[in-house]
Amino acid sequence: MRVEIISVGDELLIGQTVNTNASWMGQQLLNMGVVVDWVTIVGDSHERLKLAMTTAASRADVVIITGGLGPTHDDITKAVVADYFGARFVVNEEVLERVRERFRKRGLQMAKVNEGQALVPENAEIIVNELGTAPGMVFRTTEKLFYVMPGVPGEMKAMMMDAVLPQLKTRLSGSAVRVKNLMTTGVPESALFERLDNLDEIQKYAKVAFLPNLLGVKIRILAKGNDDADATENLRRAEMLLRDKIGGEIFTDHDISLEETVAALLVERGETIAVAESCTGGMIANRLTNIPGSSRFFDRSIVAYSNSAKMQLLQVPAGLIDAYGAVSFQVAQAMAAGARTMAQTDYGLSVTGIAGPGGGTAAKPVGLVFIGYADENETVSEKWTFADDRIGNKQRATQAALNLLRKKIMTRKL
Amino acid sequence: MRVEIISVGDELLIGQTVNTNASWMGQQLLNMGVVVDWVTIVGDSHERLKLAMTTAASRADVVIITGGLGPTHDDITKAVVADYFGARFVVNEEVLERVRERFRKRGLQMAKVNEGQALVPENAEIIVNELGTAPGMVFRTTEKLFYVMPGVPGEMKAMMMDAVLPQLKTRLSGSAVRVKNLMTTGVPESALFERLDNLDEIQKYAKVAFLPNLLGVKIRILAKGNDDADATENLRRAEMLLRDKIGGEIFTDHDISLEETVAALLVERGETIAVAESCTGGMIANRLTNIPGSSRFFDRSIVAYSNSAKMQLLQVPAGLIDAYGAVSFQVAQAMAAGARTMAQTDYGLSVTGIAGPGGGTAAKPVGLVFIGYADENETVSEKWTFADDRIGNKQRATQAALNLLRKKIMTRKL
Repeated sequence: MRVEIISVGDELLIGQTVNTNASWMGQQLLNMGVVVDWVTIVGDSHERLKLAMTTAASRADVVIITGGLGPTHDDITKAVVADYFGARFVVNEEVLERVRERFRKRGLQMAKVNEGQALVPENAEIIVNELGTAPGMVFRTTEKLFYVMPGVPGEMKAMMMDAVLPQLKTRLSGSAVRVKNLMTTGVPESALFERLDNLDEIQKYAKVAFLPNLLGVKIRILAKGNDDADATENLRRAEMLLRDKIGGEIFTDHDISLEETVAALLVERGETIAVAESCTGGMIANRLTNIPGSSRFFDRSIVAYSNSAKMQLLQVPAGLIDAYGAVSFQVAQAMAAGARTMAQTDYGLSVTGIAGPGGGTAAKPVGLVFIGYADENETVSEKWTFADDRIGNKQRATQAALNLLRKKIMTRKL
Repeated sequence: MRVEIISVGDELLIGQTVNTNASWMGQQLLNMGVVVDWVTIVGDSHERLKLAMTTAASRADVVIITGGLGPTHDDITKAVVADYFGARFVVNEEVLERVRERFRKRGLQMAKVNEGQALVPENAEIIVNELGTAPGMVFRTTEKLFYVMPGVPGEMKAMMMDAVLPQLKTRLSGSAVRVKNLMTTGVPESALFERLDNLDEIQKYAKVAFLPNLLGVKIRILAKGNDDADATENLRRAEMLLRDKIGGEIFTDHDISLEETVAALLVERGETIAVAESCTGGMIANRLTNIPGSSRFFDRSIVAYSNSAKMQLLQVPAGLIDAYGAVSFQVAQAMAAGARTMAQTDYGLSVTGIAGPGGGTAAKPVGLVFIGYADENETVSEKWTFADDRIGNKQRATQAALNLLRKKIMTRKL
């Protein structure tokens, strides 16, 4: 199946909006085993969008168009699509009623311009838009399939999940494909690879890809089979063999972040945490408090940049800082223990380090970071050596701290 | 000038990487008055990239290709370009020497595969790569101009700034264009528009566009003229008239963030700040500590989620929380003053609010936020009503707090 995505909008061409829609669609299609062949961005121009459709139809079986379906003058996609198919516009009563109902529910007067949303090319099948006024549309020709959706990410994603992806799946005749992503962090790609000394055996069942980024390595398993059950079984076998070797490094196989994984553990156990941050500068707290309901497990973070803040708010002894320096195993432990004691939480977590680009010395270079952890039984710290970019170092240290916490929680009995 | 960007790489099609390169190039070209006509993403396929070049040449004057110039087997761009132009490969001695020098400087053995970086199509002009091993290339035909650059963002950006944009500028014959972006925050687009009752007069000199996003409104001024001096003068007049009405809302006309603006003010004045955050959850600290050297002005942030943290670490009286609630003018002021007093800094800044999605009541709905400010002369607080998305509310409250701080600093004598 050859797929082309056409993203419509001047805002994409001038860089006011980044084309995350096409990325997201590419990911979703890959999870069905389909690699998108082309992405084309075209502005709000009738002539150019029509040309883009012609070009796409010449080289793809499925064309997915997003954007330009709003009610204002520069939303031209519907007119171009009607022109392309030589179709008349007709009023779709169901869509009209939905748009009216939407305004009624909110107690708002519907501007006349919104009635236009119910005008659709006569050959279009409608995809219901639960989140907005512009309907999605499907056009079928003998050989090609055209999908047209709004550019609003939430509306597009709902239509992809509810209609487009299931429809495409049924078209993928023959072999079935199943994809699963295992998220790891804290172990470099090469080390994961070495620990997987059974990779050849795994690859009998499924293709395995390592996708590293700043915060970890995503392991993508892509299994094929004669039917869904067969593909699912192949995936299961490959995953089992993988987990047998590196299961402890995998923090999720769902589309959730490390902080969500940690938060779910804490909420499930009814436990709480206090954080003490130096070089991460509030990033750990920021990530943990991005989670709705974080007040159930998150008590506080002390972002203690100055030494006086470390002493005053975390009870770090001045002598410890004098003897070992603020960036040390000892101070990391004192910070974690101090945060926990003062907040009376189950866990204390701390970071102290040199984010850079300045502040490094021969003995303590930029990128040196200590992570501290405390619970009622133990206080420990880890040493990491990261890189020389400030924000990257903040991100790496935050990730390493959350992962240390995750691993510690996992090994503790309730 | 009709411009097409071709972005090469499977990672873009499967959504592993978002195409921020094309967005950035679109912004830079717009700043010269050029709107990109097309962006095409194509995978690591010889046949498809060649087709993309043919298509681009049929509809654009300038074709900019990025990605696929590395030394490994799936980097095919150079071979396709040579094929497209029917050009032989020749060794470019200057490039070879640069690549060798790069490895020598780092004390590394150069892998043989890197010598290939010095092989270039015979009709290519070289753009020096100061940051990596793959050279950029320019191909000129009678009517068209092709640029080929690496996909590594830093390398691409340096080549754009040093070579591509200056070259294109000289091609833009006739009228000159000057663009300036004024960044504002805290005032909605419609209110800015109302205060600009002289917009018609301004538009005699330049086109003005309002570009709102979550954190503020960017005002883009685009001035034309018969030559550079003329365009510059038109820009100056339009900007002067704009600043006359809304100058106080503009925090920068450079490509810097609000936190960088605030940091520059603090460093210039040798002043320091302590922060107390509830619903922003460390985001203010995180943004301020993204700035290199932030320890010069940033002392600490207390991320006080629990009431006990507010009392223990910020000396907020328990009676105040009982009487007015944690989300109130009074507690915001007490938090700002407490942070400042305990840290002995020049300024205290605080946020307390309900980020959502849960936790709202009829009297104190989701989105309600109080921002507190304290210096040695005054302690004040502001009430804001934001929206119902948690992370958006954190971002809006962070922006509003930094902007209150900026405005207060601006009005204080040293």
